[in-house]
Amino acid sequence: MKTIKSRICELTGITYPIFQGGMSWISEARLAAAVSNAGGLGIISAMNADASYLSSQIKLCRELTDKPFGVNILLLSPYVDDVARVVREERIPVVTTGAGTPGKYMEGWLRAGVRVIPVVASVALAKRLEKMGASAVIAEGAEAGGHVGELNTMALVPQVCDALSIPVVAAGGIADGRGIAAAFMLGAEGVQCGTRFLAALECQIHPVYKQKIIEATDSDTIVTGKKLGHPVRALKTPFTRKFAQLENSQDFTQADADSFGAGALRRAAQEGDAVNGCYMAGQSAGLVKKIQSAQDIILEMMQQATALLKL
Amino acid sequence: MKTIKSRICELTGITYPIFQGGMSWISEARLAAAVSNAGGLGIISAMNADASYLSSQIKLCRELTDKPFGVNILLLSPYVDDVARVVREERIPVVTTGAGTPGKYMEGWLRAGVRVIPVVASVALAKRLEKMGASAVIAEGAEAGGHVGELNTMALVPQVCDALSIPVVAAGGIADGRGIAAAFMLGAEGVQCGTRFLAALECQIHPVYKQKIIEATDSDTIVTGKKLGHPVRALKTPFTRKFAQLENSQDFTQADADSFGAGALRRAAQEGDAVNGCYMAGQSAGLVKKIQSAQDIILEMMQQATALLKL
Repeated sequence: MKTIKSRICELTGITYPIFQGGMSWISEARLAAAVSNAGGLGIISAMNADASYLSSQIKLCRELTDKPFGVNILLLSPYVDDVARVVREERIPVVTTGAGTPGKYMEGWLRAGVRVIPVVASVALAKRLEKMGASAVIAEGAEAGGHVGELNTMALVPQVCDALSIPVVAAGGIADGRGIAAAFMLGAEGVQCGTRFLAALECQIHPVYKQKIIEATDSDTIVTGKKLGHPVRALKTPFTRKFAQLENSQDFTQADADSFGAGALRRAAQEGDAVNGCYMAGQSAGLVKKIQSAQDIILEMMQQATALLKL
Repeated sequence: MKTIKSRICELTGITYPIFQGGMSWISEARLAAAVSNAGGLGIISAMNADASYLSSQIKLCRELTDKPFGVNILLLSPYVDDVARVVREERIPVVTTGAGTPGKYMEGWLRAGVRVIPVVASVALAKRLEKMGASAVIAEGAEAGGHVGELNTMALVPQVCDALSIPVVAAGGIADGRGIAAAFMLGAEGVQCGTRFLAALECQIHPVYKQKIIEATDSDTIVTGKKLGHPVRALKTPFTRKFAQLENSQDFTQADADSFGAGALRRAAQEGDAVNGCYMAGQSAGLVKKIQSAQDIILEMMQQATALLKL
């Protein structure tokens, strides 16, 4: 299978420039290992769990693959100090970070040879992180699932590319080879996909979640939480519709949101709870048509992308 | 100069597959003629003006160019019946429509040989318009300036392409050759740009408006009016910040919005009013760096796009 040569592949030691996004309750070791075995970069989400969870996930992933994989760290996690230390001690090849600036952990990670690739939603943050020593950035448009910013992929990626010297990975709205080819035209040197991998055979989420992704059309996602400053994109379900309604009332607070949302991701991913689950997904859900192995997903995407790019 | 062959060029008789968007108070005959003379499709906005305004604009445009040009019709205009008739009687080669379904005008336009190319923001509307006889659609992502939908270019364009047989023009976030190349990778056969043409020499807007576009960064636009169901993207200015604040109050109505917004576009485009003007612009404003002739804009974009696409 042809690939697209880029600095992202050199930097991370992967064959195909495709990252699997770090998604809480979704991106665990078996999915990450399958993606890495297929030549992409599998990523384990440290989510809001403690160090022992992450350590056991890393151990399992290493049993399942000898290829490079990454860890995604939520900088708002209550266990962030602990999981940052695990990444350093285990000398994980790549760490991706979301929701903030990984300032206090950078030096330790860099010293341990960890490549730091933060997710950014604006040029200003991207520039700051390049100065701090990031090896690359993931420029993510708000068409992505989960936590989102304000800018969108088509406009964000070329502006981040113009502003930085380090390579840029494009994310948001990319679920097939057309998206990869488009991202490279915009100047990106890799892509990160979340939604497409929800439908991977090796993804351990509840079958109801996969079915919802496969049935979703272009208009089936909604962003909630914008008013409180924590916008999240997920499928339109009773849960997100209720959230959207609640947040429109004047006296809705972050505490209300936290209490309403507590456990909703887990209820979707593990229980397939159609009423009280929050099914995070990007606008590209409408492009995802079937359940396939991670390897088939990656090969199909690369075949389409390299044909379009006439490689 | 090389071009990219596509059905959009055949359909409209243009050399380069670039439409200049129809923008109220901005897209008048001199800009449209310059774009058409440069090989793109110039488009006159009929905005909310009456038939005599449009007729005089068409007359002026025909004096300035013998190339094909289009007219954009706002389906919510109080004069929509009249301007739709002008388009038919004048046998304008292309009409683009926004804000709804041009159902009642389709037959008359088609009989007069007018190509109807509506702006769409979802797959469902695109499919309906194809059935009604549209020659193509403009799939516009919400990173665009002016009235916007919910979906974004990277995810919307491939989904619309998959659903239709007629050609698709991509819009939203495209301001250089990278955007054109990316749009074609997604399956589009042309692009529509608005923001980039705000900085055209031949664009008659106030110099303050052009300066604001050139100085804008990636994060300098905001969407207001979402709560009332008429979201609009414009530059962050005292006007839009005030609007955003007002619409967050429980008792803000469409009538309040109409009264607050009345004349704001004109004040921006004609007076350069920095306080009370509404400067519509897309997220791609950060990519626009200088004032150039329409011809230089189009040639520069095409040169970059054809090089990236290895044509």
